[in-house]
Amino acid sequence: MAIINEHYLKLKAGYLFPEIARRVRVFTEEHPDVAARVIRCGIGDVTEPLPQAAIDAMKSATDELGDRATFRGYGPEQGYEFLRAAIAENDYRARGLDIADDEVFISDGSKCDTANILDIFGDDNRIAITDPVYPVYVDTNVMAGHTGAADDKGAYEGIIYLPCTAENNFVAAPPAEAVDIVYLCFPNNPTGAVATREQLTEWVEYARRHNTIIFFDAAYGDYITDPNLPRSIYEIPGARECAIEFRSFSKSGGFTGVRCALTVVPQSLQGSTAGGEKVALHPLWLRRSTTKFNGVSYPVQRAAEALYSPQGQQQVQALIAHYMGNARILRAAAQQAGLKVWGGEHAPYIWIAAPNNLSSWEVFDRMLHEANVVTTPGSGFGSQGEGYFRISAFNSRANVEEVARRLGAMQW
Amino acid sequence: MAIINEHYLKLKAGYLFPEIARRVRVFTEEHPDVAARVIRCGIGDVTEPLPQAAIDAMKSATDELGDRATFRGYGPEQGYEFLRAAIAENDYRARGLDIADDEVFISDGSKCDTANILDIFGDDNRIAITDPVYPVYVDTNVMAGHTGAADDKGAYEGIIYLPCTAENNFVAAPPAEAVDIVYLCFPNNPTGAVATREQLTEWVEYARRHNTIIFFDAAYGDYITDPNLPRSIYEIPGARECAIEFRSFSKSGGFTGVRCALTVVPQSLQGSTAGGEKVALHPLWLRRSTTKFNGVSYPVQRAAEALYSPQGQQQVQALIAHYMGNARILRAAAQQAGLKVWGGEHAPYIWIAAPNNLSSWEVFDRMLHEANVVTTPGSGFGSQGEGYFRISAFNSRANVEEVARRLGAMQW
Repeated sequence: MAIINEHYLKLKAGYLFPEIARRVRVFTEEHPDVAARVIRCGIGDVTEPLPQAAIDAMKSATDELGDRATFRGYGPEQGYEFLRAAIAENDYRARGLDIADDEVFISDGSKCDTANILDIFGDDNRIAITDPVYPVYVDTNVMAGHTGAADDKGAYEGIIYLPCTAENNFVAAPPAEAVDIVYLCFPNNPTGAVATREQLTEWVEYARRHNTIIFFDAAYGDYITDPNLPRSIYEIPGARECAIEFRSFSKSGGFTGVRCALTVVPQSLQGSTAGGEKVALHPLWLRRSTTKFNGVSYPVQRAAEALYSPQGQQQVQALIAHYMGNARILRAAAQQAGLKVWGGEHAPYIWIAAPNNLSSWEVFDRMLHEANVVTTPGSGFGSQGEGYFRISAFNSRANVEEVARRLGAMQW
Repeated sequence: MAIINEHYLKLKAGYLFPEIARRVRVFTEEHPDVAARVIRCGIGDVTEPLPQAAIDAMKSATDELGDRATFRGYGPEQGYEFLRAAIAENDYRARGLDIADDEVFISDGSKCDTANILDIFGDDNRIAITDPVYPVYVDTNVMAGHTGAADDKGAYEGIIYLPCTAENNFVAAPPAEAVDIVYLCFPNNPTGAVATREQLTEWVEYARRHNTIIFFDAAYGDYITDPNLPRSIYEIPGARECAIEFRSFSKSGGFTGVRCALTVVPQSLQGSTAGGEKVALHPLWLRRSTTKFNGVSYPVQRAAEALYSPQGQQQVQALIAHYMGNARILRAAAQQAGLKVWGGEHAPYIWIAAPNNLSSWEVFDRMLHEANVVTTPGSGFGSQGEGYFRISAFNSRANVEEVARRLGAMQW
């Protein structure tokens, strides 16, 4: 009799985005007259075409596979050297950060990486997660058996939640107690908050003091517009001794459907056995990658490499400028509508307090029914998200301008 | 203090293929004069160009991403309907097998799938693995903490090994005891053995009797040339109630560097809680896929779909015919050289008994030093592989004919 992983049964059935999709479907079925008016600013998915440099590189690499002389089969599981080097050089060494090519592991997505990284850790670590948060961090810990059951607010026993609230400007400080692993994501999904150098320094010092490993999700790092704000955890001295960083081409290069990301595991990073013996994490992640993964599609790796060419860089910058232009418009419109607004300055997400003590789902429903705009209810990201909603800036300019108009016309 | 997954420390350091690469490197460095003569028939990687239908589809899908009107971001994590339907229709329903589109999950590789499938099962199942075997099945169970330490032959405590020997023609029968999960791979890597309908029926009946889940790895199913031999476990009545099937485009479509595969999880498949309550596996695997994975690259899914077009099918058949022609040549040459040979009739691998009681690594070294041919030592696949070696048929015809000549000239 094959026994299942019973931890899966603790997961709450309704994942956020399916529930949003359900409500939108019901609304459009009941109101077919306005169905075409609905503008989707819910899920954080890009909308604009792939940079031409990536397209050209991908097609040219595909042609290589059609010729026996240039055909490539299995590549290195951890990624081709050409891409690891382009990343280490451009995202790190060119900015004065000491990251070697072989510390960069290429993958098919940061969602996968932030989930899979748990494989190399034991089951008895104290795990801290900010709240609100990208739900994958929580759910993968539930699946791995690192939690007890969820309470009626959806908080799982055993996870140390770090509240991110208007009071701390949505950047949690390190807790008083020692934790073994902490997830940080800046610029943040869903709040759009960004940590300052001082705040990240506090975290790195905390981690060094307690031998904590920081999982630093920098998926939105390229959206930072202020050069004084850190785009990588490795800008903080000591981070090579305590942090794993996740980056992605999804939001910088429009790769959500192309699939390419990376994880940086410094050679200097160590965990420990239960007996207290230090163990380097890099060989563990390498073993995990070579045994349970078989590398990213070759043409996709060439497409990612092309984002670092001069044309690629220009096209990436144009893409980000487009979305950040959207963010500015949405932010201004929400403020003019008298709403309390965060984010949208170094991130493609606007985080808004629901007016009149509406709940997250109530404000979601009003935005859908009255403005015909799909947003994301803050409570879907954790109990501290209750009373907020998120608007995504991933859209066409015309749609964003229309959303801004409709926000202005709302009668709260 | 972050505690590591200490089960990783049980893994034997020397994975097979790195050790082969090391010996080849040493040999070519010490014998630069014959370095160019070395022919690689070790790792099971394809060598011939990608089918043109796949190339055309991949490039055209890439162009779609360059146009806002046809751009696609995140796809369904479990794969696009167009590909799931093409697979279910062509690989299953057209052959009279009852598999629904939504029972097919698209992934980036069977290596990943056979590793990740363990996520949805508990840690206390009795797990049976054939020996010799694809090392990933064993290593991923070690990593998940399903075993004790390895003995001096590399066998891990807690795994029930099913010997595949010349006596049983390298197809193990079900064991006397009940197991909860069993890995079967036919046509087999590394032995090239293929199970008959009667043998698989025995397995399915065993599994039904004991509520065992069969992990059926059909990565080489398209290499079966005898229509009476089952290409899918679902050809056996009752398999929908006991088997998960893994298939891949790696060896049929030359996709080892492109990355696309699939897992079939029938809706009718059930595991159990420790308390004895039945739980359907399909929703668990769906939850795993949506939470820890983000789908396969869109152009790659279009390339896989194109393999099912009339031209695509013709090109796949030509590719397989090429490799199977190679296999026939290698098999005949080894037989003419007086060696005992298995496989190579419904699989791209030739499995050969080392003559004169040579060990696997001894025969590997002699093939390398005297014939300048890289093979794979059977002991790398498990203790029952000792005394055998594998030759891969994945190569150009010219190289294979040369290997055949050199085999004929060997003086054992």
